[in-house]
Amino acid sequence: MSDDALVIFTPSGKRGHFPLGTPVLTAARQLGVDLDSVCGGRGICSKCQISPGYGAFPKHGVTVEDDALTEWNAVEERYKSKRGMVDGRRLGCQAKVMGDVVIDVPPESQVHKQVIRKSASDRVIAMDPATRLLYVEVAEPDMHEPTGDFERLALALRDQWQVPDVVADLAILRRLQPALRKGDWTLTVALHKGNHDAQPRILDIWPGFYDGAIHGLAIDLGSTTIAAHLCDLRDGRVLASGGVMNPQIRFGEDLMSRVSYVMMNAGGDVEMTRVVREALNALAASIAAEGGVDPASIYEAVVVCNPVMHHLLLGIDPVELGQAPFALATSGSVSLDARDLHLGTLNRAARVYMLPCIAGHVGADAAAVALSEEPGRSDEMVLIVDVGTNAEILLGNSSRVLACSSPTGPAFEGAQISSGQRAAPGAIERVEIDPLTKEPRFRVIGSDLWSDHPEFGRATERTGVTGICGSGIIEAVAEMRIAGLVDAGGLIGGPEQTGTARCVPEGRTHSYVLHDGTAAGGPRILVTQGDIRAIQLAKSALYAGARLLMDEMGIDRVDRVTLAGAFGAHISPKHAMVLGMIPDAPLAKVTSAGNAAGTGARIALCNVAARNQIEATVHHIHKVETAIEPRFQEHFVNANAIPHAVDSFPSLAAIVTLPDVSFNTSGGREGRRRRG
Amino acid sequence: MSDDALVIFTPSGKRGHFPLGTPVLTAARQLGVDLDSVCGGRGICSKCQISPGYGAFPKHGVTVEDDALTEWNAVEERYKSKRGMVDGRRLGCQAKVMGDVVIDVPPESQVHKQVIRKSASDRVIAMDPATRLLYVEVAEPDMHEPTGDFERLALALRDQWQVPDVVADLAILRRLQPALRKGDWTLTVALHKGNHDAQPRILDIWPGFYDGAIHGLAIDLGSTTIAAHLCDLRDGRVLASGGVMNPQIRFGEDLMSRVSYVMMNAGGDVEMTRVVREALNALAASIAAEGGVDPASIYEAVVVCNPVMHHLLLGIDPVELGQAPFALATSGSVSLDARDLHLGTLNRAARVYMLPCIAGHVGADAAAVALSEEPGRSDEMVLIVDVGTNAEILLGNSSRVLACSSPTGPAFEGAQISSGQRAAPGAIERVEIDPLTKEPRFRVIGSDLWSDHPEFGRATERTGVTGICGSGIIEAVAEMRIAGLVDAGGLIGGPEQTGTARCVPEGRTHSYVLHDGTAAGGPRILVTQGDIRAIQLAKSALYAGARLLMDEMGIDRVDRVTLAGAFGAHISPKHAMVLGMIPDAPLAKVTSAGNAAGTGARIALCNVAARNQIEATVHHIHKVETAIEPRFQEHFVNANAIPHAVDSFPSLAAIVTLPDVSFNTSGGREGRRRRG
Repeated sequence: MSDDALVIFTPSGKRGHFPLGTPVLTAARQLGVDLDSVCGGRGICSKCQISPGYGAFPKHGVTVEDDALTEWNAVEERYKSKRGMVDGRRLGCQAKVMGDVVIDVPPESQVHKQVIRKSASDRVIAMDPATRLLYVEVAEPDMHEPTGDFERLALALRDQWQVPDVVADLAILRRLQPALRKGDWTLTVALHKGNHDAQPRILDIWPGFYDGAIHGLAIDLGSTTIAAHLCDLRDGRVLASGGVMNPQIRFGEDLMSRVSYVMMNAGGDVEMTRVVREALNALAASIAAEGGVDPASIYEAVVVCNPVMHHLLLGIDPVELGQAPFALATSGSVSLDARDLHLGTLNRAARVYMLPCIAGHVGADAAAVALSEEPGRSDEMVLIVDVGTNAEILLGNSSRVLACSSPTGPAFEGAQISSGQRAAPGAIERVEIDPLTKEPRFRVIGSDLWSDHPEFGRATERTGVTGICGSGIIEAVAEMRIAGLVDAGGLIGGPEQTGTARCVPEGRTHSYVLHDGTAAGGPRILVTQGDIRAIQLAKSALYAGARLLMDEMGIDRVDRVTLAGAFGAHISPKHAMVLGMIPDAPLAKVTSAGNAAGTGARIALCNVAARNQIEATVHHIHKVETAIEPRFQEHFVNANAIPHAVDSFPSLAAIVTLPDVSFNTSGGREGRRRRG
Repeated sequence: MSDDALVIFTPSGKRGHFPLGTPVLTAARQLGVDLDSVCGGRGICSKCQISPGYGAFPKHGVTVEDDALTEWNAVEERYKSKRGMVDGRRLGCQAKVMGDVVIDVPPESQVHKQVIRKSASDRVIAMDPATRLLYVEVAEPDMHEPTGDFERLALALRDQWQVPDVVADLAILRRLQPALRKGDWTLTVALHKGNHDAQPRILDIWPGFYDGAIHGLAIDLGSTTIAAHLCDLRDGRVLASGGVMNPQIRFGEDLMSRVSYVMMNAGGDVEMTRVVREALNALAASIAAEGGVDPASIYEAVVVCNPVMHHLLLGIDPVELGQAPFALATSGSVSLDARDLHLGTLNRAARVYMLPCIAGHVGADAAAVALSEEPGRSDEMVLIVDVGTNAEILLGNSSRVLACSSPTGPAFEGAQISSGQRAAPGAIERVEIDPLTKEPRFRVIGSDLWSDHPEFGRATERTGVTGICGSGIIEAVAEMRIAGLVDAGGLIGGPEQTGTARCVPEGRTHSYVLHDGTAAGGPRILVTQGDIRAIQLAKSALYAGARLLMDEMGIDRVDRVTLAGAFGAHISPKHAMVLGMIPDAPLAKVTSAGNAAGTGARIALCNVAARNQIEATVHHIHKVETAIEPRFQEHFVNANAIPHAVDSFPSLAAIVTLPDVSFNTSGGREGRRRRG
């Protein structure tokens, strides 16, 4: 019998010979196999579970005997009886190698767990969070070799976890001595390892082995909507997601009106900073409640937002962003204490990371979209449109990436829309209008049933039908255009012109009654002429921004379009094309990515290396300034019609024929019907 | 004529050849000559003044022609007319080399200015403060190459001052954009460069060139007295010094009684932390007022103190320091924001540096004494005694250094003394008693006249004679012993025994009337039997600590003794020897160093390299724990007499003969006089 044994790990395939008696965890560490451990091999944390394989493995050229590992021991038995463990599993720190063996590391035992995104455009996030839990054994004090408890803890982290030069703030120092004594000289540490040169920092400590969870928030701070995901920092799972309206809306619906507010009102920025921080605190509290966790267990937040929101959150006067040359106070990533932003709902030691901005009008949200969608790795020329009150637009492929932002206004988020509302249960998110009867049907957030389903009323009893959100208004206007209720100029026809009593006069214009809940005490939900105008302005700005990038790139067509947006349900590619929001592309090549900026934030939350990646990437993104580019105005004006020029949309013509109607504002005469 | 010229700098002797037209400042920088400049050579700051020499310099082998430098220019003329400049001086950034030249760099133009300490044991401090002012020109924003204002500032600091990777907190970011625009893209930065791996940090900014001063505080936080120096961080000058009583005295006069207070009273540590921080704020305010500077111009404080004060200032419960193994929460140096200590009187961005502790009973004050007195560089075996409520004692030479602390109690600082007071104007600091008449004379702080001088009354009109400080009580007791008013056992004789009516009965013991100011409405200042007992306890503890170190070192005699103490005037070596405070040494080898701990704090304030030095040094100091060492008790008990054993003091016998008197407590019979 040999003195050592061959150990083969799957799925990595790493292999090596080890002396008999080597713990499996030790072998894994020496081979660089990704096997988790919080307690450092002391049989406490059970993170290092492995599945030994027995029998013949022709592929690996070994046969594993039944006694290839030491016998099931008392530590494993105690863990299994108290917490349960899948049959056949062993603890890697307890089982020792006694013969050639094949060891499988199940996904949940890998440190760099990979989390599958739920959205259509699946992408895995490798777990490598900035903040993690480490269990350490600290040497007891020795009067004859006097060193501080903190210095002995730092030494333990260096020796047991290869983390040198840790720092801790006063609050940790204050709690350290009782914690070490209570834990009998063992401690669990929440350690934050920032990127760049920042020293690793102890955020929290627990006596002994702490088996609880630590959490992080990925926040997409939009001008109109604030969306956030609550993630378990151990495995990246999203425990809850939620959103609130940005309370700054009362100071101005779009960014430039907020900048103007600051310029006109002394202290206006201070007030706006205060309310947005309050909103973040409230959102953190509600999302933690929804996820069933203590908000004090949130140790990190990653924030993405546009530059004006970026400055207002940080408490920096955004006035320079309102005028050329649109200078940012800081363009790099920002790492700071959550308490510096008065985010008192989070743990008091929580850290905040804000992605870098690309330019004065192209913010950390655009950087997050770039991180999530990675246009720079695409072979095809891809256009990525992140729809919001300020749209972030990226165009490029592996050769070159361009970016701009476009001030679309808040219409796409349901603001400035008569029946508009934030994407929340009860909001209409999908709309269809029968081209013959002109009758609508719709779905609301919170139910999968269409409104013409017999069970719809009961299914929506709790939420009601409360208004119309961003994706709903896009579909409604596009469906009205397809159904001939709206002409290419954007005018809604009168009842005589359209042949439906749902088109009702409102002053000198008409509105379309999408839903009338007044009989049941609910709202009457209309699409008004004003709503159509707001959507026209918004989509013209969006289109003009995309065209400007195409001009800069020197192309007339893109290979692929990705639609993204924070506001709830995904945008329908077909309806976006009907509106003329985006340049023409084959319908199959237009996809919806959900909240790409929020996903980018989540990636940065779960993977510290991704922060370095996007910080390097932003320097290679060429930014185009829409605000001073005359061609932007040109494209904007030319894009007013719905869609703005049928000739430009060959792909659209292949899937839908738009009625050639034309209404004047009086509504007195019949719309002409021409088919081209 | 050659295309280049020889440039020789004095006093450094550095020399090199430079192309004609090279500015003197540039030549200095290339040669590594220490020539100051805040504005980086732009003719603004005038720090780079130099004195060119003309004529023959046989020593250097050159003859300097009158046209060796370019002519006096408009920039120099403007500076001289506005601010004045010594004749013959030039600005190094304006004068360009046109021929061989000898350039003298006057001391005030050297970055690493050397500041002479005022005290007897002169020692130079090379200026290399952690915080300094830098003037930078920042690139204007460019819409086509968008970077943040902060990133361009960081680039300017890197390129113009070789300071990479600066960081700044939110408060700086908030003020950056208006400051840059007001200064027309120039800025002066107060930059803090900590030791270790900390990134350089911007503490403050001013538009354009800021010609003001920045200041630092060196604080010696004692158990009884808090002393501080206010220093100009540009040149190290001490602008003001001051002190206050430590308000924690009301919770316990010595350290162990404060630790007990914490153990007996929940929240006691919080209260003690609060009052000491308040006292530091008040002291900073008063010392700034005295120095005529705005306390907000204080950007840094260095604090030295014993371990209990260290923990209480940081807000760490000191309970572990009250029991073996006397574990510190942290033993390393501590760098933190002043606002974390609620030191709101200082600049809001001010930093605090605390020297490392040596052990649980040997603190940052002992480290500061080691930094100031450098026993580890001494060839002689030197004993350094820093007298305070807790005495820090160091013994060693270049081979080995030992340290301990000894709980002397507050008597040496005038506390627990019937007429005792802090060293402040009006306090008796020097005492002489005529051995024949037994009449005293004294001096008070604030006047150089002895009390028997005809002008004394007028000279002390404002302060009066208010009490007796630490050095005063030491001299008073020693003089009473020399004059035969006190016997070796410490008893004060009665009037019949001593032959003077100044020895008055107080209950069963006697007091000596040092001063009776009652006729003028002032106090009657006595030395009571209780005072003598308090001094005996204190000096026994001090002596026992020193002996313990000598035992550990294996020696019976020391070569040299340095007496140090924070409490005002220097301790008189002769009187210390008479009391038996210190082991015997030739009087000429006993010197007084003033506040060595405070000097150490000032060195660390003015020289960041000294911080690295002492952090390395403390690891090589071997610490002896008095509290658990039985020999300490033995030495303590044996050291009660004044002096405790004449045989042990051969050097003392050479300078003074102590009367062999002996009094009993009744005072009823004549003291016996024996001469040996």
